[in-house]
Amino acid sequence: MKDISKATIDRLPLYLRALRMAQDEGLDVISSEELGRRLEITPEQIRKDLASFGQFGKKGVGYYVNELKHSISNILGLDNHWNIAIIGIGHLGSALANYHNFISLGFNLVALFDYEPNIIGKTVNHVKVKDVALLEQTIKELNIHIGIITVPGQFAQEVADRLVKAKIKGIWNFAPIRMKVPDDMHIVNEDLSIGLSCLSYHITRKPH
Amino acid sequence: MKDISKATIDRLPLYLRALRMAQDEGLDVISSEELGRRLEITPEQIRKDLASFGQFGKKGVGYYVNELKHSISNILGLDNHWNIAIIGIGHLGSALANYHNFISLGFNLVALFDYEPNIIGKTVNHVKVKDVALLEQTIKELNIHIGIITVPGQFAQEVADRLVKAKIKGIWNFAPIRMKVPDDMHIVNEDLSIGLSCLSYHITRKPH
Repeated sequence: MKDISKATIDRLPLYLRALRMAQDEGLDVISSEELGRRLEITPEQIRKDLASFGQFGKKGVGYYVNELKHSISNILGLDNHWNIAIIGIGHLGSALANYHNFISLGFNLVALFDYEPNIIGKTVNHVKVKDVALLEQTIKELNIHIGIITVPGQFAQEVADRLVKAKIKGIWNFAPIRMKVPDDMHIVNEDLSIGLSCLSYHITRKPH
Repeated sequence: MKDISKATIDRLPLYLRALRMAQDEGLDVISSEELGRRLEITPEQIRKDLASFGQFGKKGVGYYVNELKHSISNILGLDNHWNIAIIGIGHLGSALANYHNFISLGFNLVALFDYEPNIIGKTVNHVKVKDVALLEQTIKELNIHIGIITVPGQFAQEVADRLVKAKIKGIWNFAPIRMKVPDDMHIVNEDLSIGLSCLSYHITRKPH
């Protein structure tokens, strides 16, 4: 498989969600035009993105909804049903623990960690918050694949170091710092200010 | 100004943050190589992105940190110091209300809204939660430019309709639905499952 651009990979979850909605509506086949209309993405872009992964759909007919849904799920690795843990159960950690889209994508929320005595022991979305002292042991016992870091910035690097040592497969980082991790560790840095900045860009240029 | 790609605009806030950090470290000048190293973006990409907005930096010297910082801030429209309001003060709304990066980018958090009696009247990050019944009136009184929607999906369209009617400039939507808004309304849909799906994609392909 050739090198796929980040922008293409970012669009796959959008395609997946639109296909699920189409399936819920009872559609068996969907055209790139209809998919594009629903997602505000050009049909050319959709056809180009999907062509990077193989041959999908039938010319003049469209994409078979169920087939394409399974293919994208497979490309994204979602059928691995990764076990995820969240470290830092403040507002953001709690919000993520309750985010239904993760579950519907096939991720399993298996552990939550905090270091605050008044948070440890609480239950969020059916999962009990553990003491972060149990991090390494729990990762091993529950076979946790992905660690989501939602601790304050000053604690984030230490948590990342511990996740790396415990041989986690990937890190999703919400702390506003760039972490130092080994080259072979996959880390996705989430920056919530990007969306707001982009909105600012667009409304600044809005014709009056 | 020619049409700028979404990917380029998405990178501007990253450049801005890196420039601020460089300035805090006392740097006056930074090369595209050093900026690229810090952000894991190629120097060519950085030079290309910035060239879409004009002539920055000096060949063989680099970018003047303070000057470029102000230019990007201006391009993103951050010097407008937009007034923002959050509608839906659950975990996600509370997390966003406490997100320091928004403030440091120049946004003013001026109002919070909810419909739950036990949330109305609470104070989050020095702002008191108002009854959502006061939405239109408050938007006018406090000159609110941007509405952030963090209500559950089934209430999101109604909130969006009210924001549109109240002549807000832009909407940042966290609800997992595609909203119907007029063509001239700027809306950025945030999807928190994209980051996790991308991580899944990468760890699936990780060599063992």
